[in-house]
Parts: sequence; structure tokens; C-alpha cells
Amino acid sequence: MHADAPAAGTKRQKFLRIFDLFILVMIVVSLLAFSLETLPGISNTTRLWLERLELISVFLFSGEYLFRVYMASPKRDYVFSFFGIIDLLAIFPFFLGFGIDLRAAKSLRLLRLFRILKLARYSAAAQRFHRAILIAREEIVLFLGAALILLYLAAVGIYHFESDAQPETFGSVFHCLWWAVATLTTVGYGDVYPITVGGKIFTFGILVIGLGVISVPAGLVASALAQARKMEDNNGNLIEVESPSEA
Amino acid sequence: MHADAPAAGTKRQKFLRIFDLFILVMIVVSLLAFSLETLPGISNTTRLWLERLELISVFLFSGEYLFRVYMASPKRDYVFSFFGIIDLLAIFPFFLGFGIDLRAAKSLRLLRLFRILKLARYSAAAQRFHRAILIAREEIVLFLGAALILLYLAAVGIYHFESDAQPETFGSVFHCLWWAVATLTTVGYGDVYPITVGGKIFTFGILVIGLGVISVPAGLVASALAQARKMEDNNGNLIEVESPSEA
Amino acid sequence: MHADAPAAGTKRQKFLRIFDLFILVMIVVSLLAFSLETLPGISNTTRLWLERLELISVFLFSGEYLFRVYMASPKRDYVFSFFGIIDLLAIFPFFLGFGIDLRAAKSLRLLRLFRILKLARYSAAAQRFHRAILIAREEIVLFLGAALILLYLAAVGIYHFESDAQPETFGSVFHCLWWAVATLTTVGYGDVYPITVGGKIFTFGILVIGLGVISVPAGLVASALAQARKMEDNNGNLIEVESPSEA
Amino acid sequence: MHADAPAAGTKRQKFLRIFDLFILVMIVVSLLAFSLETLPGISNTTRLWLERLELISVFLFSGEYLFRVYMASPKRDYVFSFFGIIDLLAIFPFFLGFGIDLRAAKSLRLLRLFRILKLARYSAAAQRFHRAILIAREEIVLFLGAALILLYLAAVGIYHFESDAQPETFGSVFHCLWWAVATLTTVGYGDVYPITVGGKIFTFGILVIGLGVISVPAGLVASALAQARKMEDNNGNLIEVESPSEA
Repeated sequence: MHADAPAAGTKRQKFLRIFDLFILVMIVVSLLAFSLETLPGISNTTRLWLERLELISVFLFSGEYLFRVYMASPKRDYVFSFFGIIDLLAIFPFFLGFGIDLRAAKSLRLLRLFRILKLARYSAAAQRFHRAILIAREEIVLFLGAALILLYLAAVGIYHFESDAQPETFGSVFHCLWWAVATLTTVGYGDVYPITVGGKIFTFGILVIGLGVISVPAGLVASALAQARKMEDNNGNLIEVESPSEA
Repeated sequence: MHADAPAAGTKRQKFLRIFDLFILVMIVVSLLAFSLETLPGISNTTRLWLERLELISVFLFSGEYLFRVYMASPKRDYVFSFFGIIDLLAIFPFFLGFGIDLRAAKSLRLLRLFRILKLARYSAAAQRFHRAILIAREEIVLFLGAALILLYLAAVGIYHFESDAQPETFGSVFHCLWWAVATLTTVGYGDVYPITVGGKIFTFGILVIGLGVISVPAGLVASALAQARKMEDNNGNLIEVESPSEA
Repeated sequence: MHADAPAAGTKRQKFLRIFDLFILVMIVVSLLAFSLETLPGISNTTRLWLERLELISVFLFSGEYLFRVYMASPKRDYVFSFFGIIDLLAIFPFFLGFGIDLRAAKSLRLLRLFRILKLARYSAAAQRFHRAILIAREEIVLFLGAALILLYLAAVGIYHFESDAQPETFGSVFHCLWWAVATLTTVGYGDVYPITVGGKIFTFGILVIGLGVISVPAGLVASALAQARKMEDNNGNLIEVESPSEA
Repeated sequence: MHADAPAAGTKRQKFLRIFDLFILVMIVVSLLAFSLETLPGISNTTRLWLERLELISVFLFSGEYLFRVYMASPKRDYVFSFFGIIDLLAIFPFFLGFGIDLRAAKSLRLLRLFRILKLARYSAAAQRFHRAILIAREEIVLFLGAALILLYLAAVGIYHFESDAQPETFGSVFHCLWWAVATLTTVGYGDVYPITVGGKIFTFGILVIGLGVISVPAGLVASALAQARKMEDNNGNLIEVESPSEA
């Protein structure tokens, strides 16, 4: 995606970095303005100022989008890239007049933060994470599949135990899925919990299995990060050998 | 269990994969129908359609069972296998007329998902998990034993502190076991919690030990996965050496 | 502690293992009886039978204690050992007439479970855990110190923010310590939580640091287990080299 | 910071260690006194004694500060060091008459505990942690950035789903941030939770991603600790090689 970055001259890189930082500050300011607008007891004067700030930021982001399209050597490299689409989504809704619905896209632009970091000294860490995710990709898919099946089994199980005792909160398998999510993630809001003896024993059993499954991602990350780190030489560059074969 | 899979021809494999995918979709559809049936405010028309869908799926699964028995070269290899028993359990209750109780068996059939994945590119990840569990098997048993003893000790301890102050929720050691499960898994629903000073200090102490024990599975998984990964060569195949002896 | 175990003959070992298993079953039975006795709605007849069961188990455990003293070659090896003291504590209170207070000691006797496992095939796993704890001993002490300081800082911090708004639940630093325990362990019962804006921001900050600290034990266990495993040769025996020096 | 420690004579070291221990006990006593003072139902006599204890400890800490300034060979080495500033902050407010506000600084002095431990046998563990943090520094910054962006996205998302249904608790993005903190850390107090179907499904989705992010620090710590341990030789000293290159 950023293969041209190291090839480009140092001056252009420096300018782009300052430009990126300026846009980043504008994104944070505009997100803060959006958040402040949601406050219930806000005065009309403040709301007016926030709307003006929103207007300014949208025009800035539009200019930024045009500038980025102009700068990209093959135009489609930017327009159809992940950040190109995000940048368009962040200004598009405003011009269509329904400026609120896709406002969340603007916060996705915060991901640009990592592009800046990537250019600087954080490149090694970001690349290591990227490599670790690639290494553990298949395990992550397996884990997500197992977690989803466990969630469904937990919901069906608790439905059998609690649906008669608490028809309000455990009324259907879908209601029970909410309990399963809150319980197996160990969030435990306390809005739904089993009250029958059978339901409590079932909860214990499913938690013993569930905590084992929940501990898998931590293990995956640790294992994949260790392997990703091993692929580097002393200067943090990727070395040729793909797997830790000691022989 | 699937030793004949790689030996079988590519055509039969391809057909079986599409067949498996079709059955998988039917399982998901029938599970969704079962879940929808539990919704309280469902109309009679919808219920009728869901029951028809159930009828269709049971006949499909019956046909699938007979087909699988027919396909297996030594018949008992399938009939007495894990999936063979699950497949039978998923259709058996319907013909006996008490179609609801063993309906949970149908969701176990979702485990077939992994068989499909196993055939495809996810085989390495699944085998690595399997190997990791075998490596850490003894530690997992030890951990489960320690966790159960800790749960009982926590329940007996909190009973001494809270049974007088809260006779409703901490009335017996069994009541307290529910508190111990909710607390040591860090779910913390909030339906039972200590209110005496002694009970709170005891909770702190047991949580310090408990969090250490809870962190064990993550460590086990990480350690076992790293070792399982080391047993592979660059192509993901198992190599001869059983332990990482560097000499 | 059990240095004589491998040296003793196979017959004596076999007998001791069956004897240990019998005592273990008796411990579980007597713990179950103790737990049942705490049930509020228990009938007098059942209570009488449970008391008789208690009487039988105490006499059995007394006989077991005398037998173990008789069996130990230097008597003090057993009498002053960890299990010797636990065994005495489990029968001692009964004869002194205040049979309930030290009843918790009986559940500690469940630790004997590990002695049985240790004799059998679980020896490698248990020894590996033991070695892992020895390796990470200093880190564990450091972590506990850091966790205690963090708990105190969290309690003092939230006291400043919430004591005026919620004088009932955040009335003193000691009240706040209970909140700190429930929050930093992520149990979150929901009986105490901040309601002021300052308190909520402080909670966020302390949780960011706290989750980092909480993740330390999982990392310690993973790291120490990997190192403990490396110390073994292919047969699971401890090898001479104490640290993984590759040169 | 303590480069002169190993160079200094054994006698001076021994004296400083006893002196440090004495100051540490005084810090714990004075923190306990401060905590006791916050208890609501405290008598006037007790309060008077606690205030006297406070007076004594402040004078002791003042003497300690002057002594430490006198002992430091280049005075500014101590005065402008981390502990020098903390030591000053702990006594400064008392003499200015607003003795309570910066009292929290006193508990920071407990960090001195680690200096004592560092002098003793815990030096290897503390240095290993320090090295592990340096190794994982860039990953930690990346993780914190990702966690903050996820928190904001979660808050904006739940605001769209729940602000109409629960205007009291999900009234603005800032209110929703509190929900996001309590949920993604899995604390789950139970004071705020989604009640709409959309909000519950969104919570499930954000928790699946969030638990993955939360598992990152455990993986980072495990991976960094393993690498830090590898940098040591058999005696726990740092060896020359900076990365585990086996070739």
C-alpha cells in the first residue's frame, strides 16, 4: 500500500508528515466537536460554533482529498485504497445533506495515526504486529468459529434451564445469547443471570470451558509475536528464514 | 479418524466438500428455525412455517445419515465415530416424538464445520491446536484440579464470613459456590457480593490467588502453542524431533 | 519431602496409593457432608445421619494419622511436614469440642490429591509447575508489590473524587479499597462504582495501568513454563544445563 | 540513577539499607494514619493522635530529605532525580499549610520499596522487567493508540443505538465513553448496559474485537519477558548479544 514511501525524496516525506499531523489534529478537533454536539444541555451559541467548526473541517478535508488525489502518481492507487475510501466517506455525507449517519467514518480516519507512526520509528513494531497476525490468521479464524459455536451452545443450554423461571430475560434463544455474550466475555453487567440451581451449575460448566477458549487469543498473540520477533535480525529487519529451524 | 481423506480421489473429495457445505447451511438454517420458535410473540403462521422447515430438515438429515452409512467403506467406522453418533442423535428424537429434548445435539453438528475447514487450508492450525492440547494435557488436568479446590475453599471461607449477615444469598456452602464461580471467573454479576469487612478482605485474598490461577491457562496455551509450532518444518509438516533440544 | 518415594518398594507404593485413594474419597464424602449440613432447610433426621458420618470420618482420619506416624521412618519427617500438620488440624478440633472452626483445614487435605497424582504420571507436569514458580519467584514478589501499591493509589485517588458524592460507599480509604479490588480485578460486582465525571476519568486511567499489571502474571507463567520445559530432555527428565545458553 | 551504588563501600550500603527500611516503615505507618483519618466515625481523641503521628512523620521525612541531599556527592543528582522530587512533594505541602492535597505523593514514595529490593536479590527480576518494557515500548504505544481508538468507536457506535432508548445513561458520546470503558475492560459494573437489540449486537461485535485487543498486553509481556530472559547468561547477567540469533 505504501511501497512508494521509502522511494520518495526526504523533503516530500517531511512535508507529508507535517501535513498528516495537521490533518490528524483537525480530525481530533472535529471528533471532539461531534462529541460535544451530542451533550444534552448544550446552549444554542455553542451549537452554532460547533457547526461552524464542522463546516470548516469538512472543507479542509475536501481540500485534503483533492490534494491527495492530485499527489498520487497513478490516481487509482489512492482513490481505491483503504484510506482513500475512508477519506471520501468522511466528507461524502455532508454534501449529500444527511451529514450525521456516516459521521462514524470520520473516526475511522484516526487509523491514519498509524500511517504517521509507521513512517517514523514505529515501523518495526507495526510490521511485527502485521506479521504476527498473518502467522496466527488460521488460528484466529478457528478460535472465532469455536467461540461462536460455544456462544450458541451456551444460549441453548441456559434457555432450557432458565426460560420457565425468568420468561422476561431468558424468553428466547436470542435473549439467552445476550446472557451468553455478557457471561463468556466475563463482563457480567448483572442485568441477566441464572437463578435456578440447574442454570447456575450449567453456567459454571460453560465458564470453565469458556475461560479456556477466552485464554486462547492471549496465547496466540504471545506465540505469534515471539515468532515474528525471531524473524528479525539485530537491526529489526526481516531475515530470510521463514521458520525457526535450528538445524 | 479421517485417515482415508488424503488417500481418496480429488473428485470424491470435491463432491463431499460441496455436500458438507450444503448440510452445514441446512444445519445453520434449522438452528435458526429452532431459535426463532423460542421467541415468545411469534404468530401461528410463522410457527407453522418453522415446523415445516423443521420437517424438511429432519428428512434431509435422515437421508444424509443413510448416505454417509452407505459411503463409509467399513460401515462401523462412521456409525460408531463421534460424528456418526452426533448425526444419529440429531434425527433420532424426532422419530421418537419427543423432538425437543435432544435438539441441542443438532448444534453439536456445527462441529462438522471444522471437518470442512480441516480438509481445506486450516488443517495446519487445527493440528497445531490438537498437538498443543496433547502437550499441555497433564497441566490442564492439574489446573482444573487446583481451580476446583480453590473454588471450594473460597465457598467455605465466604460462608464463615457472610452466612450470618446475608442468610438469603450466602445461606449454605452451595449458595457460596455460586458466589465463588461468579467472583473467581471475574464475571461478577452483582447478584451476590460480600458486605462484611471480613468477607471483603477474604474476597481480596482469594482473588489475588484466583487471578494467578486464572492466568495459568493463557500461559499454558501460549507455551504449548510455541512448542507445537517448533515441531513443524518450514512447510508446516510435523518434524521428527519431539522436544526443542538445541544440542 | 517425598525423597523416599522412588526408593520404596513397588508393593508398598501400590498399597499406599490405594490407601491414599480411599482417604481421598472419605475426605470428599466428609466435605460433602459438611456442605450439606450448612443447607438451611435440612431435616433433623438428615442432620443426625450427617453427624454420624462426620463421627465415622473423624475416627477414620484419626486412625490414618496414627498409621502415617507409625509408617514414617524418622517420625518427625511426617509429624512436622506440611501434610502432617494439615492432617492433625483436620482431627484436632473435633476432640477439643469446637469441631466447626477449623473444619476448613479438612478441605486443605484435598491437596493430598496432588500427592497421588504426583506418584502417578502427573509428576512431570507438577514438577514443571514447581520449577516454573521457582524461576518466576522474584517476578511474582515484584508483581504483588506493584499490585498492592496500585490498589492503594487507586483507593486514595477515588476517595478524593467520590467521597463527597457518595459518602455511604466511598466514605473512607478503606471503603475505597473494596472498590479498587472489585474494579482492578475486573470483577465489577456493581455495588460500588464512581458517579462523578472526575471519578469516571480516574477509573479509566487506573484501569489502563491496572490491566497492564493484571496481564503480567499470564506473561510470567507463559515465560516461566516455556523455560521450565526447555530444561527437560525428550523423556521429560531435568537436564543439567540451567539456562538456555545456545553457544 | 544508582550507578554509584555498587561502587560504594559495603558498610555504607548496609547502613543505607537499614535507613531505607526504617523510612519505609514510617511511610507505611503514615499512610495507615492518613487512611484511618478518612474513617467517618472516628473519635476526636484518635484524630488528635493521628495528627500527632502525622507531625512526627513529616519532621522525620524532612530530616530524611536533608540527609539525602547531604549524602549525594553531586547534590543535583538526588534533588532533580525522580525520588528526590517525590520526597520533596511528600513534605512540601505540609509546610505550605494545605497538607492534604498532595498527600498522595507520599504513597508514591512506596516505590522506594523497589529500590531496597533492587539493592538486594531482586535486582535481576527488576532489571528484566525494565528490559522487557524497553523491548516492548513501541508495541505498548501502538496498543494504547489502538485501544483509545477502539474506545471512541465503541462510544460513538453505542450512542447511535442507545441514546434514544436510554437518554439518561447514554445521553452523549461522553456518557457512552464511560460504558465503553466499563465494557471493554470487562469490569461491567452494571450501571450502564444496552437494552436495544441493535445495541446488544453492537456490544457483541465490539467485545469480540475488544477482547482480542485486551489480550495483546499479556502477549506482549510474555514475549518481551522471554526475550529479556534470553539476554542473560547463567548467572543472570546481561550478555552481549542483543537478539536471539541462533546462527
